[in-house]
Amino acid sequence: MSTETTGWRPAPPLPDFAQLRGQVLLRLDQLLPAGGPAPPRLHDAMRDALLGPGKRLRPILTVLAARRFGGDEAAALDAGCAVEMVHAASLVLDDLPCMDNALLRRGRPTTHQAFGQDTAILAAIGLLSQAYGLLAALPAVPDDRRARMVAVLAGAVGAQGLVGGQEIDLHARQQHVAPGQVDELNHLKTGVLFVAALEAGAVLAGASEDCLPPLRRFGRHLGLAFQTLDDVLDVAATAEAAGKDVQQDAGKPTLVSLFGVEGAWRRALDHLRLARAELDARPACHLSALLDEVVAGLPLPAGMLRRGI
Amino acid sequence: MSTETTGWRPAPPLPDFAQLRGQVLLRLDQLLPAGGPAPPRLHDAMRDALLGPGKRLRPILTVLAARRFGGDEAAALDAGCAVEMVHAASLVLDDLPCMDNALLRRGRPTTHQAFGQDTAILAAIGLLSQAYGLLAALPAVPDDRRARMVAVLAGAVGAQGLVGGQEIDLHARQQHVAPGQVDELNHLKTGVLFVAALEAGAVLAGASEDCLPPLRRFGRHLGLAFQTLDDVLDVAATAEAAGKDVQQDAGKPTLVSLFGVEGAWRRALDHLRLARAELDARPACHLSALLDEVVAGLPLPAGMLRRGI
Repeated sequence: MSTETTGWRPAPPLPDFAQLRGQVLLRLDQLLPAGGPAPPRLHDAMRDALLGPGKRLRPILTVLAARRFGGDEAAALDAGCAVEMVHAASLVLDDLPCMDNALLRRGRPTTHQAFGQDTAILAAIGLLSQAYGLLAALPAVPDDRRARMVAVLAGAVGAQGLVGGQEIDLHARQQHVAPGQVDELNHLKTGVLFVAALEAGAVLAGASEDCLPPLRRFGRHLGLAFQTLDDVLDVAATAEAAGKDVQQDAGKPTLVSLFGVEGAWRRALDHLRLARAELDARPACHLSALLDEVVAGLPLPAGMLRRGI
Repeated sequence: MSTETTGWRPAPPLPDFAQLRGQVLLRLDQLLPAGGPAPPRLHDAMRDALLGPGKRLRPILTVLAARRFGGDEAAALDAGCAVEMVHAASLVLDDLPCMDNALLRRGRPTTHQAFGQDTAILAAIGLLSQAYGLLAALPAVPDDRRARMVAVLAGAVGAQGLVGGQEIDLHARQQHVAPGQVDELNHLKTGVLFVAALEAGAVLAGASEDCLPPLRRFGRHLGLAFQTLDDVLDVAATAEAAGKDVQQDAGKPTLVSLFGVEGAWRRALDHLRLARAELDARPACHLSALLDEVVAGLPLPAGMLRRGI
């Protein structure tokens, strides 16, 4: 039994997600200011991809994880912005005609629709490069942690992360039809960057090694819940409500096609419960309230999931 | 007067470029071994892009620069391989139908011809990610140097480096017609990665700050000479001899269209002379033989340039 369970500890106040989102957006705008030194058209495309409406969930995960371990708040915000740059770049590439061929993203024309495929691809690489450069040079963070954060993010993006997930989604989806395989693909497409966002915040703050595995498993379950909800949304929502092309997964095996909408919801709930269990099992890591903080900020309809976990 | 000029110092023996090239290729193959854990088709595309025939000039620059400052040879080879991964990724993207639309590269079908555009783009991002991850986790290199090498490479790739150069080449070439502007574009397209390759080696080895500016200027002149020679080759060579599509620059202002083949050659010679001057001006940095080493390995026809510098 951990000594942590013997007394009442006040839960931290839930963070104000709207305020956090505002801070992220403000900082992103500062990091890629209008009229920067890059070629103007490219720069505009990068800003368009990065600064459109978004939930900013990944940078918020980085900030919350860093807070839990006492990390520098300004550095955590910048690290979160680096993760968001990676996320924005991945959306630009996923939307390309040779991939998902999406016309709409976050309620607006996709980057290649607005700027052409060539500039969209270059903007994505520009955002990725800026993300790594930002992490590598973070002030007020020890050298070893900066280098490690770069390695964490590079691993999440690479051939065994987002890039690998997208390749499977495009060319090997029919070999990923069992529920466990769909979960694994969802993890690669979404979970790995959730995990990296959390881990980057923890590493930045100098979290002890034993806190990282449960944090990673928490991120995995959170990512799987989130991606499953996204699949539900893809089936159920109109493009106007979702702010992006929907019915993109028609014909692909998803957890919705395997289990139906209700079954997929239940699996998402299960993942959120498993996420909580990871944190509850390690009270010494002071993470138990993190799920409440995150779930409070999830864009869930009608509080449906909040009641269940 | 520097004390270095008062005595005879034996020049180091010229390195065996064929041997160095072989070491680089062997290490690249080890870093991205056949049958790796990534999705097979993606992995094959990454290997195809990385391991095709090539001069391996950039990794050799990294190794030579690191040697000059006493850097760990194995770490320098890995850092050079990271730079080569970036270079290979940039070639994959440059060749895409929406960019240069090239069919042939290094004597073989371009990556998108062999694997499709989607997998080619993902392979490029996979290579970039691996490059940053490799630098960030280099063994036997102090944390601060690893983080700084990441920042150096990210700056070279990003919107003010290769990506910016490609954007200008595609969309603003007509605004870069004066010789100085063409030089600047050539620097962005080629020189920045030469500079980063050299700087990464020097940083890895802990070179003092005062040695970096002349090394960067050396890299810039070397890159400009190299890109100018490439433009000459584009006009003069057949695709078979060049191993890639030629006449790609028809209609674009290049130093060849501005000055003719002879004039462009002379400008390349001038840049090589300026490169030597940078090194000779800083004998304390022990770089003066670097140009001989590099030029000895350049694929120059008939020793023409060697006589002139």
